[in-house]
Amino acid sequence: MRHTHSGGGLFPHPENRDMFTNLLGQVIDDYYRWHAQCAEAAAPALIDPTHETVADRTAGPAGEMDAVASLVRELSGRLAHQATPFPSPLYLAHMTPDVPIAASLAYLCAMLYNPNNVTPETAPVTTELEHEVSEDLCRLIGYQPGTGWAHLSSGGSTANFEAMWIARNLRSLPSAAAAHPAAAGLVSGRSPLVLANMPVPQMLDLVECLSARGLLSEVGRLAAEQRREANTSGTLLLARSAHYTWDRCADLLGLGPADVEKMELTPTHRVDVQALGRRVRALLANGQPILAVVAMCGSSGEGAVDDLDAILRLRADCERRFGASFYVHVDAAFGGYCRTLWLQPDGTMAPFEDRPLDGSGARMKPEVHAAFRAMPLADSVTVDPHKSGHSPYPGGGLVFRDRRAVSLVARESMYFGQGNGSRLPFGPHTLEGGRPGAAAAAVWAAHRQIGLHSQGYGRLLGGCIATAQRLHKRFSVARRAGPTASYDMDSEVISCFAPDLNILNLSVGPLDSECQRVPRGAFGRLALDSILAEAASEPLTSLYVSGNTLSSRPQPGRVEQVMRLCTMKELGPVALDVVERQLRAAVSRSVAKVGTDGAAAQPVSVPAAQPGVDPF
Amino acid sequence: MRHTHSGGGLFPHPENRDMFTNLLGQVIDDYYRWHAQCAEAAAPALIDPTHETVADRTAGPAGEMDAVASLVRELSGRLAHQATPFPSPLYLAHMTPDVPIAASLAYLCAMLYNPNNVTPETAPVTTELEHEVSEDLCRLIGYQPGTGWAHLSSGGSTANFEAMWIARNLRSLPSAAAAHPAAAGLVSGRSPLVLANMPVPQMLDLVECLSARGLLSEVGRLAAEQRREANTSGTLLLARSAHYTWDRCADLLGLGPADVEKMELTPTHRVDVQALGRRVRALLANGQPILAVVAMCGSSGEGAVDDLDAILRLRADCERRFGASFYVHVDAAFGGYCRTLWLQPDGTMAPFEDRPLDGSGARMKPEVHAAFRAMPLADSVTVDPHKSGHSPYPGGGLVFRDRRAVSLVARESMYFGQGNGSRLPFGPHTLEGGRPGAAAAAVWAAHRQIGLHSQGYGRLLGGCIATAQRLHKRFSVARRAGPTASYDMDSEVISCFAPDLNILNLSVGPLDSECQRVPRGAFGRLALDSILAEAASEPLTSLYVSGNTLSSRPQPGRVEQVMRLCTMKELGPVALDVVERQLRAAVSRSVAKVGTDGAAAQPVSVPAAQPGVDPF
Repeated sequence: MRHTHSGGGLFPHPENRDMFTNLLGQVIDDYYRWHAQCAEAAAPALIDPTHETVADRTAGPAGEMDAVASLVRELSGRLAHQATPFPSPLYLAHMTPDVPIAASLAYLCAMLYNPNNVTPETAPVTTELEHEVSEDLCRLIGYQPGTGWAHLSSGGSTANFEAMWIARNLRSLPSAAAAHPAAAGLVSGRSPLVLANMPVPQMLDLVECLSARGLLSEVGRLAAEQRREANTSGTLLLARSAHYTWDRCADLLGLGPADVEKMELTPTHRVDVQALGRRVRALLANGQPILAVVAMCGSSGEGAVDDLDAILRLRADCERRFGASFYVHVDAAFGGYCRTLWLQPDGTMAPFEDRPLDGSGARMKPEVHAAFRAMPLADSVTVDPHKSGHSPYPGGGLVFRDRRAVSLVARESMYFGQGNGSRLPFGPHTLEGGRPGAAAAAVWAAHRQIGLHSQGYGRLLGGCIATAQRLHKRFSVARRAGPTASYDMDSEVISCFAPDLNILNLSVGPLDSECQRVPRGAFGRLALDSILAEAASEPLTSLYVSGNTLSSRPQPGRVEQVMRLCTMKELGPVALDVVERQLRAAVSRSVAKVGTDGAAAQPVSVPAAQPGVDPF
Repeated sequence: MRHTHSGGGLFPHPENRDMFTNLLGQVIDDYYRWHAQCAEAAAPALIDPTHETVADRTAGPAGEMDAVASLVRELSGRLAHQATPFPSPLYLAHMTPDVPIAASLAYLCAMLYNPNNVTPETAPVTTELEHEVSEDLCRLIGYQPGTGWAHLSSGGSTANFEAMWIARNLRSLPSAAAAHPAAAGLVSGRSPLVLANMPVPQMLDLVECLSARGLLSEVGRLAAEQRREANTSGTLLLARSAHYTWDRCADLLGLGPADVEKMELTPTHRVDVQALGRRVRALLANGQPILAVVAMCGSSGEGAVDDLDAILRLRADCERRFGASFYVHVDAAFGGYCRTLWLQPDGTMAPFEDRPLDGSGARMKPEVHAAFRAMPLADSVTVDPHKSGHSPYPGGGLVFRDRRAVSLVARESMYFGQGNGSRLPFGPHTLEGGRPGAAAAAVWAAHRQIGLHSQGYGRLLGGCIATAQRLHKRFSVARRAGPTASYDMDSEVISCFAPDLNILNLSVGPLDSECQRVPRGAFGRLALDSILAEAASEPLTSLYVSGNTLSSRPQPGRVEQVMRLCTMKELGPVALDVVERQLRAAVSRSVAKVGTDGAAAQPVSVPAAQPGVDPF
């Protein structure tokens, strides 16, 4: 693995075009040679002059190849003229990265062989690469590759679905074991309170014991019945800032509306751990099962990093006080790779310093460092290579602290074939089953080209974070009464809070007071529309931003439409000047529009909005 | 669209290598030009001589580009030497097709721009292509593109999860409406029996009314509560031959073990519609909700096509008798594209003839034709372009008869913005959200290169089916007492039943009687192992087959390990000779091995097996 210090040649550039073309030419040569060998290796035994199959025919009617060529040229032309300009320095809208050339080439190469990583039988090479990626991801999070496990998924949503499916089934296993004559001995002496919320390592021991005795399926079925009879699968606790797909997850799993509790946020949009602690202790004390506590690590709207360190200290405290505990899942689909900011070459995490090791100039908050440092104690983590991992779609990922967790939902006949420490096959141990081996090849290549440490991904993502921080500085104003005060109305564009990672939320409003009857969020919506309209007419030279609806803005219980910038690249001061100028111009246009339309005389109607509307 | 009659130039061949390379060269030129424009269009404003970002640096330390090149060359070399030889005429194991060049090129081209079809904002071109594919898939199944809807998914599993999620939520809506003061009027006069199992079109009308009145979310939440209180989400009825991921689906959705009823099979491994009818009528008569009836169209182990026609007649009969009904989903992940065998250029389905229109020589069964003809009356269909659609992974698909169904699980704020007939955005209306736009481009190109009609896909898949039928003939023996009799023990390899589509199941056993104490399935397992071992040592010249565990073999209630051949290509008579010879040789080796090992003296222990173990 090359540990790049500069990112040199990371992305496409006129200087590496010939190399890219030549390499892909070799890839195609290899592929065509392989294809011919596949088709002809058994020859002459298989050559049959009297019978021509569809595949035998190489030359179709006149114009056949012309039709393919025009199809591909049409597609290429449309994309080159209309594709979203993710590589542009002015593209600051969504979580889509520019793709490093090694990752593109690896995807293109593997895709030709069409491997399906459901089993090594259909993907001998790329399942191997997914196992290497699995170990990479374990190390990224701080898990032991031998006891932990990771796999790729189609995206962050399905990774979260899978984690909660496992957490739900795990939570109900101890009570079911207690009710099963042949399994009760495994949990004897536990109080109902502990059975309802057994600590995760004990539940995983139980899985192992049940499996060894051939009881896992039966007790699992009993657990499913008990969940129905108890009318609950346990309570899922998570921040109000959670992505909307978390509601989808709860509904999919058959949780009732009362089973999901969304916790209030701090002014910087992290979950309120005090409130969480009160609720968790009440549930544990009453013996009511907790399905899981989900911590965000880079909420999709705000990039906020929940205080995972505090959540895990809360858990330790509960284990001391009650002997009972809860499953902790981290939704780090966006933020997970930022752990590399402190990852040293030996795999350990560097202690906190005001300025991280990567040299990007990013200044991280101590509580963000603490959250990443605590991550190895969480039970599972969603982390998407196709977001901050700079891999192409599809490339979601799910990482488990203890691989015994997946045996709970594995097909039993497969599971019993697995020894300790062996490489678990992906199909029987994952929610989705089949998946493109090419995605694994791309993630494998990106990890190797960039490097999973502070000078590789750390430097790359540090640059993205530093960019968000520099923009924050340009749009921050002195708060009147500390960080919890509501923002001023006296500036057109204000950064709502110092970003934890590389997402910035900008509140928009007029300088003068005559428009104050118009909700500030209405200006945010108008400014966003103005920017999107400009980008639609001048795709390659325009600024791209996205929108967000912040809950608790401007007062708790209220929501406000803001502009959201996701800086998936590093910008220098001149580029930052351009971004600032374009943002302020769009806001001025929106303020002027309200004036011109006479809307200031009437409160502007803001479309109904919900927190976390960004679809990413 | 070119309607190819011959499949000419469909797959890679030395003669089209230069075209492939040249086209891809143009694609790379377009991509690099676009990338440079993205990076530089805002110049000179963004050029900053004093600040260099990671992305600015094009030349890394010496050896940087060499490292990328060696990474890609390593990957390409490993794949070209070890990849599973899907294009080989002797590869008859799994459902992976050879990929047409148009589909590969389209995937490669679109992938470079890394579009995410969650929203047109991040994929203006490829969401457009997915909408075109959506209309293609509606026409394939026989739905109206204007009122139906389709989207791509990561695979068949997630498509099935999504369909059952929707069916579950839909089923419980009428009772919840009846219990809601503001919605009760919409279902007044309906008996509890009808409310429990309201016909699907009436439920969709109810969705539309609730949505128009702003009550959909609230009544949906009430339905979720009622499902919990009732201790059931309704009964899911499906064939015992269903893929193992259907158990995963039921568990994921929180169904209890008692909520899933697996129906017995006919001797040709279709669901027993008589038994299904008895059970359905009993549930309806008792007012017990039926979540859905799932019909297989190409079961993964056997390629069996359930009698969908009879299931839909059963439904019509129930509606007449009870005014109550059930949701019908078809798992046609494997078989869906075979509807093209009868699809005429005007989109209508040709009437049954012994020999379909495609000219491949396949002789289809009338009841298989009837199942495909009835398909437009089913409520939803899973169909995977990455299986018989000859598209690369990932390319699953889900098709709805009535697009109002997806509004039930859509994010409400999005849904209300949609007019009738408009193009529904994919992210808010699908389970997964984000997905690679490149997958849509590949399916779009495959549909256009091959053609969704009898002379395009029909001819291609007809050749695959004819191949399975010709192999069946080589291994079929006269049955002693018609199709329901158990097979003979007097032949080494016997085709278990005439295939509905292009999957063949071969039962393996010795010619002589001295080994009869060994279960026939033990020979199947040994022969399979022998074939796989040979393929591992001689990957390019060996035969590849897979295994299956047939339930009801040799007697009802028993299971038997058999060899399974999935013919994803057309073979001529000489190639069929080679396949037959290699199969018989492997079986002879397995028989000899039992003799040598002395295992005949002791019953061979067969590993515990479950129906539908093939991971595809």
